[in-house]
Amino acid sequence: MSNLIYGHHPVVEAIQAGKPVEKVFFQQDIRGELEKEIRHLTKAHDIPLQVVPKEKLNKLVRGNHQGVAAWLALVEFHSLEAVLPAVLEKGEIPLLLLLDGITDVRNFGAICRSAECAGVHAVVVPQSGSAPANEEAMKASAGALARIRLCRVRSMYSTVEWLQQNDVQVIATALARQSVPVYDVNFREPTAILMGAEGEGLAPKLIKMADQVAKIPQVTDFDSFNVSVAAGIALYEAIRQRVTS
Amino acid sequence: MSNLIYGHHPVVEAIQAGKPVEKVFFQQDIRGELEKEIRHLTKAHDIPLQVVPKEKLNKLVRGNHQGVAAWLALVEFHSLEAVLPAVLEKGEIPLLLLLDGITDVRNFGAICRSAECAGVHAVVVPQSGSAPANEEAMKASAGALARIRLCRVRSMYSTVEWLQQNDVQVIATALARQSVPVYDVNFREPTAILMGAEGEGLAPKLIKMADQVAKIPQVTDFDSFNVSVAAGIALYEAIRQRVTS
Repeated sequence: MSNLIYGHHPVVEAIQAGKPVEKVFFQQDIRGELEKEIRHLTKAHDIPLQVVPKEKLNKLVRGNHQGVAAWLALVEFHSLEAVLPAVLEKGEIPLLLLLDGITDVRNFGAICRSAECAGVHAVVVPQSGSAPANEEAMKASAGALARIRLCRVRSMYSTVEWLQQNDVQVIATALARQSVPVYDVNFREPTAILMGAEGEGLAPKLIKMADQVAKIPQVTDFDSFNVSVAAGIALYEAIRQRVTS
Repeated sequence: MSNLIYGHHPVVEAIQAGKPVEKVFFQQDIRGELEKEIRHLTKAHDIPLQVVPKEKLNKLVRGNHQGVAAWLALVEFHSLEAVLPAVLEKGEIPLLLLLDGITDVRNFGAICRSAECAGVHAVVVPQSGSAPANEEAMKASAGALARIRLCRVRSMYSTVEWLQQNDVQVIATALARQSVPVYDVNFREPTAILMGAEGEGLAPKLIKMADQVAKIPQVTDFDSFNVSVAAGIALYEAIRQRVTS
């Protein structure tokens, strides 16, 4: 598992030092300066904050937690606003992968593995409702999680908007009425592929915002491809087009 | 788990009735008619036979096993020799998936899920050294395992030969010197895609026998795609070519 730290000073210092904090747990009945400071810091650093009863913290921590604890992630988080210009500066065509609501750790790891093989410039996940970048994910990724640029964003909606404003087309993958086969998408343009959760799929609003909606073609009407297989196929199609163009 | 049956008559009757027997366990110190009969029947019906000490059977079975027990599979096994002519008769172009040494149950299930989505005519596995078609595989396949035609063969080498004699090209997937990108394979012909185990990959002899060796293109030199993702990509490329031709 990722490392747990606890106590007022260790948690505050980790955040201020820019360490990759996965999540902060805060005791629900604590008020005053400590609460203000933790709320301010987590917000400023885009770190998920979960307010929990004291009992939960007691279970999590075998020491004097002073009402606050935090998981340190196994990997660094990058800023998408810094990654995109760097890619363009290198003369490469951006290829990004946005994962909305992928909570299954093995799927998340497998997707990161494919993303690293495909030379994806960044994998973007929302701050909350994502699989943790923990040891199980690392194992499922065959180590790719330690190499890929992982970006955590406050809102997937704002991120889609920001990418579009920066001339990156956003391709949602979904079995919708307007979906085109994934081979009909032009991946030679700067592209972000947006994948939703297995089962639920993407939020309708995200599908609506996307520049195009693509589906993996099927021969039978059986269910659908597993989300990590679908991600691999979309990335392969992007590589195929870019290599053979 | 799949169902366990035991005792001389139940096991013999299950085999003779053509029930899908996953594997037979036989007590190592039993000789005579029973041994002859079990050896003959399992050989004739292509069922794996494992000779085990009495203690292993005692652990497996909570009843009077009389030296023999068997796992019944959750699915029926089909005969490849019967499947191929039936596909041709329907005027379809055969698309088969041969899995050699895929022992991870979740990968096996995920591959069957993709195969069913892609309209694969049969998934072929060797009699020994394959993941069992059990409940975990069924779950990982999202139920596809109950729909796909699963064929169990005595030898993958003989199967490759037999397919080639019947005008089905065999495409091995491997990162070999002679590998071409998978998009350079002509999937509009009758095709069997041959996948090896994660890690070890395909046996060199099988790679040598194949009509062509294909690889999934990568942008980075990082490791490789997960085997179930690689299978999904190869199947997608086959669909893409057949649909857009």
